Amino acid sequence: MNDEFSLITRYFKNICTSRPDVRLGIGDDAACLTVPPGKELLVSCDTLVSDVHFLPSWSAEAIASRAVRVNVSDIAAMAGEPNWLLLALTMPTLDEQWLTAFSYGLREALRVFDLALVGGDTTRGPLSITMTIHGLVPTGKAITRRGAREGDIIFVSDCIGAAALAVSFFEKNLPLEERAVLWEKLIHPKPRLDLRYILQTFASAAIDISDGLSADLGHICQSSGVGACLDWEAIPVHPLVHKYQGEQAIPFALSGGDDYELCFTVPAKQVKACFEALAKQQITCYPIGVIEKKLGLRAKTATGDVIPIEMKGYQHF
Amino acid sequence: MNDEFSLITRYFKNICTSRPDVRLGIGDDAACLTVPPGKELLVSCDTLVSDVHFLPSWSAEAIASRAVRVNVSDIAAMAGEPNWLLLALTMPTLDEQWLTAFSYGLREALRVFDLALVGGDTTRGPLSITMTIHGLVPTGKAITRRGAREGDIIFVSDCIGAAALAVSFFEKNLPLEERAVLWEKLIHPKPRLDLRYILQTFASAAIDISDGLSADLGHICQSSGVGACLDWEAIPVHPLVHKYQGEQAIPFALSGGDDYELCFTVPAKQVKACFEALAKQQITCYPIGVIEKKLGLRAKTATGDVIPIEMKGYQHF
Repeated sequence: MNDEFSLITRYFKNICTSRPDVRLGIGDDAACLTVPPGKELLVSCDTLVSDVHFLPSWSAEAIASRAVRVNVSDIAAMAGEPNWLLLALTMPTLDEQWLTAFSYGLREALRVFDLALVGGDTTRGPLSITMTIHGLVPTGKAITRRGAREGDIIFVSDCIGAAALAVSFFEKNLPLEERAVLWEKLIHPKPRLDLRYILQTFASAAIDISDGLSADLGHICQSSGVGACLDWEAIPVHPLVHKYQGEQAIPFALSGGDDYELCFTVPAKQVKACFEALAKQQITCYPIGVIEKKLGLRAKTATGDVIPIEMKGYQHF
Repeated sequence: MNDEFSLITRYFKNICTSRPDVRLGIGDDAACLTVPPGKELLVSCDTLVSDVHFLPSWSAEAIASRAVRVNVSDIAAMAGEPNWLLLALTMPTLDEQWLTAFSYGLREALRVFDLALVGGDTTRGPLSITMTIHGLVPTGKAITRRGAREGDIIFVSDCIGAAALAVSFFEKNLPLEERAVLWEKLIHPKPRLDLRYILQTFASAAIDISDGLSADLGHICQSSGVGACLDWEAIPVHPLVHKYQGEQAIPFALSGGDDYELCFTVPAKQVKACFEALAKQQITCYPIGVIEKKLGLRAKTATGDVIPIEMKGYQHF
C-alpha cells in the first residue's frame, strides 16, 4: 500500500460523502455521480499557491476554509448550488499536524455548504491547493458574464474593499476588533448563494468579485461587448476602508479583490421587481451604475464629471 | 484586464470546446455542461509536479500530452468515455515559448480523445499541473475497485514495465530505437478506452496501473476485501524489461508504475465469453491469476512454490 493512498484514506476519505447524488465517492479511479434531469452541471477550478494566494504562516484550517469558499463563490456567481468538490493537495512533507488542521477546516466548510468531497490527489511538492467544484443549476438558468445589455442596471451585493484592506494591513497593528473583522472577511468570505433565485429570475449577467470590482465588471463588459458608467458616490465601500484609506477609499475598493461579493446586471424594466424580491428576502444590494453601449469603464462623480476607470485588479504575473 | 485572464484567453480559450454537451466553456466563472439521461458522470483529478512526476527538461508538449493521457486513463479504468477537461496550470513566469509548446501538446491530446477544455486556472508559482477530467458511463455500468470476488480471474491489458524502465534508464545511453520505444511508453501512454465495452459487460473490478501492478492490484484486493494469487510466469513483461532487467524483470515490472494498462477481474463463468469478445475486437489481454478469499498478494512460480508479493509501488512521500 503506498503512502499516497493511505494519506488520502486517513485524512480525507470519510470527511463528507453523504449526498444522495454521490454513487461512488473518494477512493477509486474516479467518482461516479448523478445529475438529475432538468439540471445542468457547473464546474470550476481554482488554485491557491503558498506565498501568492496565502501566507505559509496562515493556519491550515484558515487556508482550507478560504479555498472552499472561493470555489463555492464561482458557483454562486453562476446562480447555481454547489454539490461536489475535488481536492488536489500538493505539500512538501507529510505534516500530520498541518493535515489534521487542514482537514478540520475542510470538513467545516463542506458541512456549511452541504458539499461532498468526491475525489482528489495528494502529491509531494511546493504547497499548493487546487479545488474543482461542481454545482447544479436548473437547465437554461445559469447566469453568465455575457448577457449584459445597454440600459441594464449594475448591482453590487454588499460593501467591498475589506478583504483587500486585510491583505494590505496584514502586518499593521490595528485594534483587535478591527483585525478580527478584516481577517474574517479574508478567510471566511461568504459566497452569495442566497442570491441564487434573484439572479435566476432577474439578472442578465453576473460575476463574483475576486480580482476587484473594476476588473470583474470589466470582464462582464468585455464578454458582453458593452461598457459601463458607475455612480462614483454609490459604490458601497466597507467602513474600515473609508476609515483607513480616506479619500482613496473608492479607488482602493474598486481595484481590491478577494471580497467575493457579486456584481450583476438587471434589465431596467426588471429592476423594480428585483428590488421587491430582494426586500422580501431581506437582502440589500446596491445599484451602482448603468451598462452603456460605449465600451470601457467610467464613473460620474458628485460634481457631474465623468472620469475613466482602469479595469485593473489583482495581477498574478 | 488582468494578465491571468488574458493568459487564459490567448493560449487556452479556443483550443477545443466544440462538443455539443458544452453549453458554456472556458472563460466564465464556471463551465455549464449537460449530462444526457441514462448516463452517470465520472470525475477524477491528477496533479503532476515538476521534479516529482516529470523533469523540467522535458518538452512542454510532452508534459501536456502525458498529463492528459494519465487523466483519461482514470476514466478508462471506470469503463467510461472522457468528455471534459479542466486545467489548473501553475508556472513561475509567463514563458510564452513554453506555453505555446504546452498548448500545442494539449490541443493534440484533446483532439485524440475528443475532449473539450472547459475551464481552468492559471497562477504564478512552482511549475505544476492539475487536471480534472470528466467522463460519462451508462447508468450503473461504472466498474469500480470493489467488485472482485473469490474465483474471479485477474487480467492485465498488455505488457508492463516499459514506462518504469524509461524512468530508471532516463540518463542511460541506450540505442536510439530503444530510447524511442521507452520514451513513447512514458510520454504517450495509451488509455485503454478500447476496453470500455469489455469492462462494462464482463468485469467485476478494474484499475489502471499507475503505481505498479502489485500496488494497484493491491488496491482492488483491499477495496474488495479479498486477496490474489498470481501465476508468476504469466505476468506479461515488456521485452526491453526482460532484456535489461534479466532475472529481476518480473519483480521490476510488478512494482513499476506509469504504464496505464488496466488490471481487471472477470468472474470465472464469464471468462470464456470475455475471451470471445476480446478476440472479436482483436485485443489481447493476459490472464495472470485468480482472486482468493485469503487476503494479501502472492504468486505461484513454475516450480509450484507460492511466494508472497509486497503491495508496493511508487511512493510520493
